[in-house]
Amino acid sequence: MVRVTVAGAAGYIGGELLRLLLGHPEIEVVGAVSSRFPGRRIDGVHPNLRSATDLSFCATEDVPESDAVFLALPHRVAMTQIEQWTQRSKLVIDLTGDFRLDDTAVYERYYDEEHQAPHLLDEFTPGLPELYRDQLRTADLISVPGCMATAGVLALYPLVAHDLIDPEQGAQFDARTGSSGSGATAGPANLHAERSGAMRVFAPTRHRHEAEISRHLGLSAAMTATGVEAVRGAQSLCHATLREGVDEQQVRRAFRRQYSAEPFVRVVAHQRGIHRYPDPKILLGSNFCDVGFAVDADTGRLTTIAALDNLVKGGAGNALQCLNIRLGLPETLGLSFPGLHPL
Amino acid sequence: MVRVTVAGAAGYIGGELLRLLLGHPEIEVVGAVSSRFPGRRIDGVHPNLRSATDLSFCATEDVPESDAVFLALPHRVAMTQIEQWTQRSKLVIDLTGDFRLDDTAVYERYYDEEHQAPHLLDEFTPGLPELYRDQLRTADLISVPGCMATAGVLALYPLVAHDLIDPEQGAQFDARTGSSGSGATAGPANLHAERSGAMRVFAPTRHRHEAEISRHLGLSAAMTATGVEAVRGAQSLCHATLREGVDEQQVRRAFRRQYSAEPFVRVVAHQRGIHRYPDPKILLGSNFCDVGFAVDADTGRLTTIAALDNLVKGGAGNALQCLNIRLGLPETLGLSFPGLHPL
Amino acid sequence: MVRVTVAGAAGYIGGELLRLLLGHPEIEVVGAVSSRFPGRRIDGVHPNLRSATDLSFCATEDVPESDAVFLALPHRVAMTQIEQWTQRSKLVIDLTGDFRLDDTAVYERYYDEEHQAPHLLDEFTPGLPELYRDQLRTADLISVPGCMATAGVLALYPLVAHDLIDPEQGAQFDARTGSSGSGATAGPANLHAERSGAMRVFAPTRHRHEAEISRHLGLSAAMTATGVEAVRGAQSLCHATLREGVDEQQVRRAFRRQYSAEPFVRVVAHQRGIHRYPDPKILLGSNFCDVGFAVDADTGRLTTIAALDNLVKGGAGNALQCLNIRLGLPETLGLSFPGLHPL
Amino acid sequence: MVRVTVAGAAGYIGGELLRLLLGHPEIEVVGAVSSRFPGRRIDGVHPNLRSATDLSFCATEDVPESDAVFLALPHRVAMTQIEQWTQRSKLVIDLTGDFRLDDTAVYERYYDEEHQAPHLLDEFTPGLPELYRDQLRTADLISVPGCMATAGVLALYPLVAHDLIDPEQGAQFDARTGSSGSGATAGPANLHAERSGAMRVFAPTRHRHEAEISRHLGLSAAMTATGVEAVRGAQSLCHATLREGVDEQQVRRAFRRQYSAEPFVRVVAHQRGIHRYPDPKILLGSNFCDVGFAVDADTGRLTTIAALDNLVKGGAGNALQCLNIRLGLPETLGLSFPGLHPL
Repeated sequence: MVRVTVAGAAGYIGGELLRLLLGHPEIEVVGAVSSRFPGRRIDGVHPNLRSATDLSFCATEDVPESDAVFLALPHRVAMTQIEQWTQRSKLVIDLTGDFRLDDTAVYERYYDEEHQAPHLLDEFTPGLPELYRDQLRTADLISVPGCMATAGVLALYPLVAHDLIDPEQGAQFDARTGSSGSGATAGPANLHAERSGAMRVFAPTRHRHEAEISRHLGLSAAMTATGVEAVRGAQSLCHATLREGVDEQQVRRAFRRQYSAEPFVRVVAHQRGIHRYPDPKILLGSNFCDVGFAVDADTGRLTTIAALDNLVKGGAGNALQCLNIRLGLPETLGLSFPGLHPL
Repeated sequence: MVRVTVAGAAGYIGGELLRLLLGHPEIEVVGAVSSRFPGRRIDGVHPNLRSATDLSFCATEDVPESDAVFLALPHRVAMTQIEQWTQRSKLVIDLTGDFRLDDTAVYERYYDEEHQAPHLLDEFTPGLPELYRDQLRTADLISVPGCMATAGVLALYPLVAHDLIDPEQGAQFDARTGSSGSGATAGPANLHAERSGAMRVFAPTRHRHEAEISRHLGLSAAMTATGVEAVRGAQSLCHATLREGVDEQQVRRAFRRQYSAEPFVRVVAHQRGIHRYPDPKILLGSNFCDVGFAVDADTGRLTTIAALDNLVKGGAGNALQCLNIRLGLPETLGLSFPGLHPL
Repeated sequence: MVRVTVAGAAGYIGGELLRLLLGHPEIEVVGAVSSRFPGRRIDGVHPNLRSATDLSFCATEDVPESDAVFLALPHRVAMTQIEQWTQRSKLVIDLTGDFRLDDTAVYERYYDEEHQAPHLLDEFTPGLPELYRDQLRTADLISVPGCMATAGVLALYPLVAHDLIDPEQGAQFDARTGSSGSGATAGPANLHAERSGAMRVFAPTRHRHEAEISRHLGLSAAMTATGVEAVRGAQSLCHATLREGVDEQQVRRAFRRQYSAEPFVRVVAHQRGIHRYPDPKILLGSNFCDVGFAVDADTGRLTTIAALDNLVKGGAGNALQCLNIRLGLPETLGLSFPGLHPL
Repeated sequence: MVRVTVAGAAGYIGGELLRLLLGHPEIEVVGAVSSRFPGRRIDGVHPNLRSATDLSFCATEDVPESDAVFLALPHRVAMTQIEQWTQRSKLVIDLTGDFRLDDTAVYERYYDEEHQAPHLLDEFTPGLPELYRDQLRTADLISVPGCMATAGVLALYPLVAHDLIDPEQGAQFDARTGSSGSGATAGPANLHAERSGAMRVFAPTRHRHEAEISRHLGLSAAMTATGVEAVRGAQSLCHATLREGVDEQQVRRAFRRQYSAEPFVRVVAHQRGIHRYPDPKILLGSNFCDVGFAVDADTGRLTTIAALDNLVKGGAGNALQCLNIRLGLPETLGLSFPGLHPL
């Protein structure tokens, strides 16, 4: 059994990691660190894990030796604690924003502060199997992308890889997301009465995930982010310009080729019905990212769409997929929940 | 113009009072007290009041002389501040739980602490026009009931008044409510991700509003309270035992007689359709309390139902109705918004 | 592999059966019958099953020989088709209301029509493992209870079994439920704009599940049912009278004893926190039924609470649990999904 | 009193018209036409109007002479019935899509069918006071824009009017909307269980409102439309390219100048807080359209945002505002409801 620790285990991403890890046949959870609730039973905080575990949260100093550590910490904490975690575990998978960018200048522009461990930025492999699977097989430091970055990148990557769009033109992303992305310690802005039913534009320009999309796609991304009524789920609509002469069939073929072998990316292309385009509603709890597209033949305008569960493919599930790859296990192990309909 | 001050004006009940008072043709708002946001513009906290007012919140010591003061304060604060408010205004309308019960022993059983102004308990008139209209015409101290108490009392009162149920048998109330009742300063339990979609039993026994219902109906009430997915709205289902031989027609007649002249209580008795029984969904923003009932002819079991907006008829609107009565104004003045459908 | 057919496979219960059966290691789905969508791909109707199956719906006459058939049909259809299904499969598990009552008079009182196969009412074993596990091991005809009946029965059964309440006094159940219970072919009353945010009392008296509760508990149940804002989930609050002298400790002990060995019933008894009482919110997709209780020591009033996912423990999951029992498989096989938090 | 008839009065826009007209001091509702419910009481269909009216729906042939008629009919019906309505009333205000475009070729491209009254397209004045107020003072045929068109146009118009963006570059609109826009007779796609919690891209390209935006702004608009979890509300994010050298201050000044005298457009420009950008959540029931913007100074990218209640400023309220203008009444008469917070 692979011995795994989760740091930041009382948060929403931490809880989702625990859910997935406790159900994984090859993994044993040996530590669940929480600075807020040391000593408290895990299922007191994550009530869905009642009867799934008798473990309690522990303090960082009580973490046993581990084969792998997941950092589901607040942003900025991971980079200040990184040394202590690399000493405790050869393999570290970070889910914060701290190591998602490989350029300190870009980091500082988007995070408005100095990076605390700039020498490590190049050491982390992006935790995005669809783009970096080979590197992940041997990576000891992995940084899982932001949920809306993963959606945005997967929405457009086939067209970049097949050179169907003009990267010079950049791309516009409109992302929508549920409230769980704000975490279990969110403030008054996330009070139910304030957040319920909202369409809250929280980043009309320059969301941090924009920088990740630009990095991975190699083009200039502009992204807006809006909180809509949902707890889980993220969706990104992408607008880009097809190269002259590219038609819908080429777009379809690029998506099909790029993702036909991917275990967790599904190309959605129905002609009719309610579910013609990707919607996170049917993906909650699952590790799938659904992608789709539409071309306006008259104008050549392209819209691509990606949807995922921000806590799973946008976080904990994606991280576990990376661990499976790194350990040489079947990539889908422990990640087979298909989602619920209706929900 | 009647000069009115709202204490606790940054809360949800406070904001609803401001909305109603700013739209009232005979009232001028002269003070909006907030200890959290003194000096800040009102519409920064209550964004629906943009362009409706340029006022800012003030501190208690800056309150001008007023004809009436509404106390939309946290529980326990009203009873400690009551002297200072009665000195500033002859007429005080309290919306907290502090003066809703007239018996210190009952107060202490339900609130688990000693009352700070027990000599005043008898001085307050209950702010429930349907039962106490005559007293309200001359009352200088008014205590508005809890939202689920108002719903519960109005659901059963006609049957008590017409002596159709056996008060010895008591009555069981099952109340459901939205999240706004927890107020604008609610804690982590009211985080959107935790509260959204919940069916949270927060009082399986002995909710405080139970004591109010018992008081006003003169019977032993048992009440449960559950938070359901909604921001506004409260609904109470009441189960009581009809006296031997009482039939559905007598029940209907009692409801009709009791409420036919009431401007804000509507008896809902449709044979078909979606809206056969009271539902807060169509009442949001309005001062109506809809009531309905069903009798199982085979068993003689009775269920009555009341629905209202917890911040309006369950709070601010009811308080303004009391003020209109006290001032000899038309009872519906400033309270004519009918609610929205669909919403 | 056990060969299984689902009739009514395009409905919500049918879809949930398919999700569970497709993930079950010992079962092969050989037929998915839909009269509405014969020939259409299953994942066109149940989009969460994309990549989980390539099957299409078939017509009844094309159903292959099966070891077991689940009937997820509209009420009244099962009893008219029952002969044809018993001819195709030795084992029939019915999820409609048609065979839930064992008394034609009671059936007719609650369903307002004549039963079409009264001779079979006694042949069906109730599909409620917690009460009828031994009979289920050999039953060839199984009738799964209604979702609110299962919640209601499990909420009170330990106290009945340990003789702690007075059955003469009856019990009152207040049930709340999401919209998926109305099914995939629901009418205008279930339009999103009408149903969203509702607290819709659809049965103030005499809900059909009331009759099932009375049957299984051997007492007179009165039940109300209210639709609240949720797609999945059912919760029942039960009010009963403890026998003289029974205290909270005895109640707790009865719950613990009754359910300690049950794989899918959890007794929730926290002193603090958000999750003190059962809430379907954390159970969606899972086969758990959480139960809890509260006693008002002063008055002896008892409230018990049960929560479950109406499509899983309230339907498809419960049915699969019965099949596992009947086949001698581990009872939890294919039913291990723990639910999501937050959701 | 002005005598007014509503055709299509049983729909959601029709109900909202009735709510507003019944509360208008200078208007008498003389006819409420419904082909589905002739003879049925209005408040049986619009339960929020209980006690506000005793009127019943009538058939078209029973409509009395009217000073003005509102057509809240299904698309395509207005253009086939238009002659009969212009015979019954000098003033006709159409809320369908039938007369929103002034070019039959564009109409046919977006609506996929031939127009039935092309000779009238030029006769209708767009019901958008912020752009066409002067023409509306004398217009006898008025066509109210689509909800997302109104939001999109108001979001960008100041920059077009002040020549701050390059119209050659076009503009991209990302619109989100609640379920009530689908109307009271929506089909299975709008079943609560399917629509709840969805992020449903129903128009990834070429939504019909796109053509209206292009017409009114004189540029090439591209628009996507997504249904999100809400009953009411529409929001549009607009992306356009500022002319070289235009800075945030010029943008702000353009918004302020354009809308400072508008009674129902508010420029939202807070530096902090939850409500920095327009959100329909606080506008439900009100006739306000809130607009805001953000400029990324580094890249010159511009995002503008508009929010409104699709049934009010996006429909019935906007139509009444037009009628007030046409009749020379105060423009805000009957439209003063400020919206609710929280809701």
